[in-house]
Amino acid sequence: MKSFREELWIEVPSRRGFVNITADVARAVEQSGIREGFCLVNSMHITSSVYINDDEGGLFQDYEKWLEELAPHAPPSRYEHNRTGEDNADAHLKREILGREVVVAITAGRLDFGPWEQIFYAEFDGRRKKRVLVKIVGE
Amino acid sequence: MKSFREELWIEVPSRRGFVNITADVARAVEQSGIREGFCLVNSMHITSSVYINDDEGGLFQDYEKWLEELAPHAPPSRYEHNRTGEDNADAHLKREILGREVVVAITAGRLDFGPWEQIFYAEFDGRRKKRVLVKIVGE
Amino acid sequence: MKSFREELWIEVPSRRGFVNITADVARAVEQSGIREGFCLVNSMHITSSVYINDDEGGLFQDYEKWLEELAPHAPPSRYEHNRTGEDNADAHLKREILGREVVVAITAGRLDFGPWEQIFYAEFDGRRKKRVLVKIVGE
Repeated sequence: MKSFREELWIEVPSRRGFVNITADVARAVEQSGIREGFCLVNSMHITSSVYINDDEGGLFQDYEKWLEELAPHAPPSRYEHNRTGEDNADAHLKREILGREVVVAITAGRLDFGPWEQIFYAEFDGRRKKRVLVKIVGE
Repeated sequence: MKSFREELWIEVPSRRGFVNITADVARAVEQSGIREGFCLVNSMHITSSVYINDDEGGLFQDYEKWLEELAPHAPPSRYEHNRTGEDNADAHLKREILGREVVVAITAGRLDFGPWEQIFYAEFDGRRKKRVLVKIVGE
Repeated sequence: MKSFREELWIEVPSRRGFVNITADVARAVEQSGIREGFCLVNSMHITSSVYINDDEGGLFQDYEKWLEELAPHAPPSRYEHNRTGEDNADAHLKREILGREVVVAITAGRLDFGPWEQIFYAEFDGRRKKRVLVKIVGE
């Protein structure tokens, strides 16, 4: 059994944004030398997500609008969490919709994906450096 | 360490529908010969989900109604993604609620489940053949 | 390859509630003797969740209110599932928002976490004993 670990550092310059991290994860799989196994990719923060979907610009706008409808940012006073002095309660909620992590199969040394699957980091409380963990276990 | 891979092909004849795939996954676990490990089951498409919940007919109707309330299909023009000529933006959103994948423990050669856990494929943009990946890693 | 399995028993005295289970999972990782691998933590029930987020009291109130808005409990007659005599259809829906499971990397014998990550059990149909599965596979 082999294991491999890497942290990706990401800084989204605005409060919210989407970053395609597929190439970074694919590079980690290659470096790991692992041919068969699983690759876990998770946000190490609790106000951002890692998820798999389509790399299409209109869809990012749809996600942005939809998540803002489901868990609005304003007014910050609507959330108890923001009494701590934070204004990011909505980010904790939005992250639950898209999820913390993905697990991807590694087959023959590659991410075992359908034709349109791409891995994204979704930021809901940006403007600072944050980390994504890539952990690969297999043989 | 052993690994096993299988694709399940599923065609839902309508736009949306739910398919219980537990028996197919259990058969894959048996074929794999793996006694201890993890089984990943994920949709290889970005407009459908794999999730674990109850096999109860009323609940499928509740999911259908609820997901349609959270991310309505109509009118397609409400979504930017549909400017590409697609009409399935809602399917990309619905899939985020139920999720892409499940990871199930394998213990003593079987899916290590509570009494009511069943694995489902949820289709949100059907009427064509689609694939589910089953990847099992262990010993 | 080594594997380790443990069930955590949890009884939430009210219908809904949140329980921090991080210390229990960390103890299981230590007992397993596994240094590198993955740890799966999942609810064995279909009306509760395991998720990772912040251990902050106000946030639990925000989750409670938010999930009740997205999938209201009352009136039970609004759900087809409740025609079976149950009154927990909303619990099946709420659990889909927070999810069934988390997969956490094990690195150097410990849960490989960012600074604020904590594992929670979220109960949506409590007042009885329920189980969480911890399965660890690695070396």
